[in-house]
Amino acid sequence: MRDVAIIGVGSTVMGKFPESLPYELGAEAARAAIQDAGISPGDLQFAYCANLYGGMVIGQAVLGEIGITDIELTNIENACTGGATAVRKAWWDIASGLYDIGIAVGVESITTSPMAGKLITPAKGDITGELGMNMVARFALSQRRYMDMFNISLEQIAQVSVKNHRNGCMNPYSQYRKELTIEEILNSRPICEPITLLQCCPSTDGAAAAILVPLDLAGKYTSQPVTIAASVLKSGDYAFRWEDMTFSDMTSKCANSAYEMAGLGPEDVNVCELHDAFAMNELQHYVELGFCKRGEEVRLLEDGVTELGGKIPVNTSGGLLSKGHPVSASGVAQIAELVWQLRGQAGERQVAGAKVALAHVIGGEVTGLESGAVAVHILKR
Amino acid sequence: MRDVAIIGVGSTVMGKFPESLPYELGAEAARAAIQDAGISPGDLQFAYCANLYGGMVIGQAVLGEIGITDIELTNIENACTGGATAVRKAWWDIASGLYDIGIAVGVESITTSPMAGKLITPAKGDITGELGMNMVARFALSQRRYMDMFNISLEQIAQVSVKNHRNGCMNPYSQYRKELTIEEILNSRPICEPITLLQCCPSTDGAAAAILVPLDLAGKYTSQPVTIAASVLKSGDYAFRWEDMTFSDMTSKCANSAYEMAGLGPEDVNVCELHDAFAMNELQHYVELGFCKRGEEVRLLEDGVTELGGKIPVNTSGGLLSKGHPVSASGVAQIAELVWQLRGQAGERQVAGAKVALAHVIGGEVTGLESGAVAVHILKR
Repeated sequence: MRDVAIIGVGSTVMGKFPESLPYELGAEAARAAIQDAGISPGDLQFAYCANLYGGMVIGQAVLGEIGITDIELTNIENACTGGATAVRKAWWDIASGLYDIGIAVGVESITTSPMAGKLITPAKGDITGELGMNMVARFALSQRRYMDMFNISLEQIAQVSVKNHRNGCMNPYSQYRKELTIEEILNSRPICEPITLLQCCPSTDGAAAAILVPLDLAGKYTSQPVTIAASVLKSGDYAFRWEDMTFSDMTSKCANSAYEMAGLGPEDVNVCELHDAFAMNELQHYVELGFCKRGEEVRLLEDGVTELGGKIPVNTSGGLLSKGHPVSASGVAQIAELVWQLRGQAGERQVAGAKVALAHVIGGEVTGLESGAVAVHILKR
Repeated sequence: MRDVAIIGVGSTVMGKFPESLPYELGAEAARAAIQDAGISPGDLQFAYCANLYGGMVIGQAVLGEIGITDIELTNIENACTGGATAVRKAWWDIASGLYDIGIAVGVESITTSPMAGKLITPAKGDITGELGMNMVARFALSQRRYMDMFNISLEQIAQVSVKNHRNGCMNPYSQYRKELTIEEILNSRPICEPITLLQCCPSTDGAAAAILVPLDLAGKYTSQPVTIAASVLKSGDYAFRWEDMTFSDMTSKCANSAYEMAGLGPEDVNVCELHDAFAMNELQHYVELGFCKRGEEVRLLEDGVTELGGKIPVNTSGGLLSKGHPVSASGVAQIAELVWQLRGQAGERQVAGAKVALAHVIGGEVTGLESGAVAVHILKR
């Protein structure tokens, strides 16, 4: 097995782009990554493209748009974990020696999809969903339980959104660039009590891309290669049918495997992008990723550990809450943010001296089967 | 790189199943493959699930239904090539040593999808499609040109459908099991002149699955392993924007790579499943797969070379025309048919002494970019 490095990343600005076709967004991000890597489109030997709502063979349209044809190309779907899955597949194709240079793209255009405004519609066969227990309702139930178990207030949960929106202000790719107060967050439109609008990630259009090569060839392209120290993808039961609905066993198993693979631990992580689809999730994931014990998650936040300037700044990009959540693109966009951080190119939101970075996404659907996918990547310079 | 063997395959009957949820079809095929391989669901270390219209994380639902959780699982989309892409990815994960046993599933439920009856609707941004040049219209145009170039009659093209429907009568998994006459085919409802209904593959619900292990471990499970001698996946321009719209360069390049990888040639192939989405396509693919030269394709058919009992029986399953075309499942269903042929388990439609088998699928979309994917697998016993 060969070590694998990322030599280029690219992203669109995240937002709502009703005038852009999905493949145009994908091509913009792919072009940016190709330029960042200093390669020609024709150098690429294979591609993965993660997408959910863009229709058939979108990756072929994305890469056809920039003149790339005649290569192995696979479209990936894994809900919110799609982009990270694309990165993992590209990682293995390089690590195993199948190819020497390839691209992972994630793209989503919610605005132009038939699912615009319907993302919490229950899936076919989801009987409990049809009875009202849709995705947000389940997260709301889990949040209530969490608040009760650890004596957490609504104000404390809203602080996650305050932090991530503050970070988003410093990210030119972020969908929202506006600071929010606890009052604004808690007084925003109720979505499913106690979750209000500004504790939810928005619907987002956008794309991101990353170029991968074997580490021992990376010097040809860049003086700042970023190594993939761990790549783990697991599927399994989602958060809601365990005895304890406030803890995602899936994330914790995945993170443990990733730490083992990297030979690193949570104490080594200098910067982290994690799946803050709802504000409460960020607190849960602190625990599951090993940053603190259960019951200590609010303290971690209030002590500023996960703030910029703290020991483990979390969601410096703004996270899904502020940067936005272009479903299948999110996993690749996290990787782009962390590559910029490890290269020292993150501008105002730079984590000084960051050497080890962790990306975490979790996705799934409430189909009555409640299954999903989770991925953790650890990057280092 | 390790040699890889298929130790179990399974399929649903193909047809229209409005009462079955997509994941139920997938689980039926996966269960059949698991039983055929003589393994337990818990033995599986990874999975790929190809699907187009079933929604998010369908593979997790398919495998969750049979109690498989906590493994790496990736959902694949590559239009009609999706199932073959899943087989290829599973092949590489075994060949490269990442895992020792895994499953590739393809599943499609057109009937229950929002696309029921709309498969030839132009994609967003497909301006020529919106002006009337949809998928069938392009195939009709290509067919007209082909007929003109090589002096082929409508009756000769209809013979492909006659042959494949005759084969379908012998396949218990086939959607249609009824012999058709040339007159019935040519007098069926016009879809896009000169293509009539019975020269088109039907809309099909169904699923198929295959279990893969390293060849050197296959003896643990079966006395009849089938080896994957070649697996090639390419993307690129689809059939219509070349100088010659009657020849798919994409298929021919892919087949040549597969023959090279297997160390075999078209003359070695004893049985073949190829992409007969429209009757005319089968004749074209004879040429692109190297079975004959251009202009000889009708003679190949009329001489009975591609009939059961001929030198290279083609689409013994009934092909997409008769067995049906459950989009993302078709590539895996072809593999299942060929495994049965190589094991001598194909009943009435058995090709005596078959040792080398070839599977070919091509898929794509007319998005104005006209790009697609093609896969060729060569299997041997």
